[in-house]
Amino acid sequence: MMEHSNNWETPALPSPVIILVDPQLGENIGTAARAMLNFGVSELRLVRPRDGWPNNNAIASAAGADEVLSNVKLFNSTEEAISDLHTVYASTGRVRDMIKRVVSPEYAAKNMRVTGENGKLSGILFGPERSGLENSDLALSDAIIEIPANDQFRSLNLAMAVLVVCYEWSRSKDIVPANILVMGNTRSATKTELQGLFTHLEHALDDCGFLRVKEKRPRMIQNIRNIFQRSELTEQEVRTLRGVISGLARQPSKLS
Amino acid sequence: MMEHSNNWETPALPSPVIILVDPQLGENIGTAARAMLNFGVSELRLVRPRDGWPNNNAIASAAGADEVLSNVKLFNSTEEAISDLHTVYASTGRVRDMIKRVVSPEYAAKNMRVTGENGKLSGILFGPERSGLENSDLALSDAIIEIPANDQFRSLNLAMAVLVVCYEWSRSKDIVPANILVMGNTRSATKTELQGLFTHLEHALDDCGFLRVKEKRPRMIQNIRNIFQRSELTEQEVRTLRGVISGLARQPSKLS
Repeated sequence: MMEHSNNWETPALPSPVIILVDPQLGENIGTAARAMLNFGVSELRLVRPRDGWPNNNAIASAAGADEVLSNVKLFNSTEEAISDLHTVYASTGRVRDMIKRVVSPEYAAKNMRVTGENGKLSGILFGPERSGLENSDLALSDAIIEIPANDQFRSLNLAMAVLVVCYEWSRSKDIVPANILVMGNTRSATKTELQGLFTHLEHALDDCGFLRVKEKRPRMIQNIRNIFQRSELTEQEVRTLRGVISGLARQPSKLS
Repeated sequence: MMEHSNNWETPALPSPVIILVDPQLGENIGTAARAMLNFGVSELRLVRPRDGWPNNNAIASAAGADEVLSNVKLFNSTEEAISDLHTVYASTGRVRDMIKRVVSPEYAAKNMRVTGENGKLSGILFGPERSGLENSDLALSDAIIEIPANDQFRSLNLAMAVLVVCYEWSRSKDIVPANILVMGNTRSATKTELQGLFTHLEHALDDCGFLRVKEKRPRMIQNIRNIFQRSELTEQEVRTLRGVISGLARQPSKLS
């Protein structure tokens, strides 16, 4: 039986710090907190939240990401909010008139992981909903994270931008098996079981006359076997299919 | 100086279709539309939106993604919503007690790109906010997309899940296809053909009494559908299987 697990675990590394500068809507703060925790990022800092803190709208929209909200740290300036960080990125959709390194979320995530492995903290700045980060905040950052979006419709919702960065952080651990078959409590069929199914089916098809045209028989059998080979059948499914065959052929089924 | 370009361009390929099944909040529909367009995905289908359509809350939260909202297509059933699609994924955070292929968003994105290169449409199903997709909807899908999230806090906001899938679609444009099915001179079955097969088989199984135990019927049907979904059947194979069913059921087959 193949065990199903995505191997996600609380990272031993410090996860990056998310810093929202001048956030306007409590709802976006809450949604950002939820998105962070979805990907194991838990430290949120707020610089001058417009509607004060704590904020009931934030709590309502965090959908239970309480550990993020209850540990929020408040700051009066971006400088103070980043003072203990080693590397700071600025997330912005627009490239300003400024010479600055621009990296993808994926690239930043990998770099932050290296930084973390060296025992140092990274952080990402996000600007207010309406206007994004000021040039003065961009100037405090080591590089800009630009999310590769549609040139004709670039502006992401604040929490969505936070999500992309946290998702890439999580991905950068190389956590996910790309393609697995979830088998539940059953196991994959053995070749013997599969052969048993084929034999059963082919006998039934001989009996009912489906394979009566001799020249077509081998090709037909191949085609049918290929269908079921591709399914990666479990032993339970083999039994189900044998029940189906017996049922259809109106023979008393021992399996149904 | 690093050249700034994200190489994003309107894809020549058809982008995947996003299908929201029983969405509850108009706001989430709007936010999902915005997230889609951020990554160049524009076709949105709704199955039974709870609050009707059009929806002012959706418009308010779409932040200008009007081309997505004004082209929304409405459906009364998931079956109808996917009838013209070649490959259907189901996005769900929870793995149900069901034999089903599970893929990462990245893997699905690559596969959808290959599908698109063959001129065919893919789609992704997303369930209602509160409960996620029903098993009957999962059974209509070829594979499950599982977003690799924090085991202790897995539940993503609906629009956030849409974002991750669309983001990976956008990212996948530079990536080489990993897995293709060689089809020879035939083509893959449409969902309509597949549903025709299922209906045929289930009628035959009802007639022969295989599905007589009412409580077991839905589960049994799901299991059988999942077997054939996984095979990525060609239209020729669908015809072969319908011939097999007719043959076994000893009804005069028009196809054999």
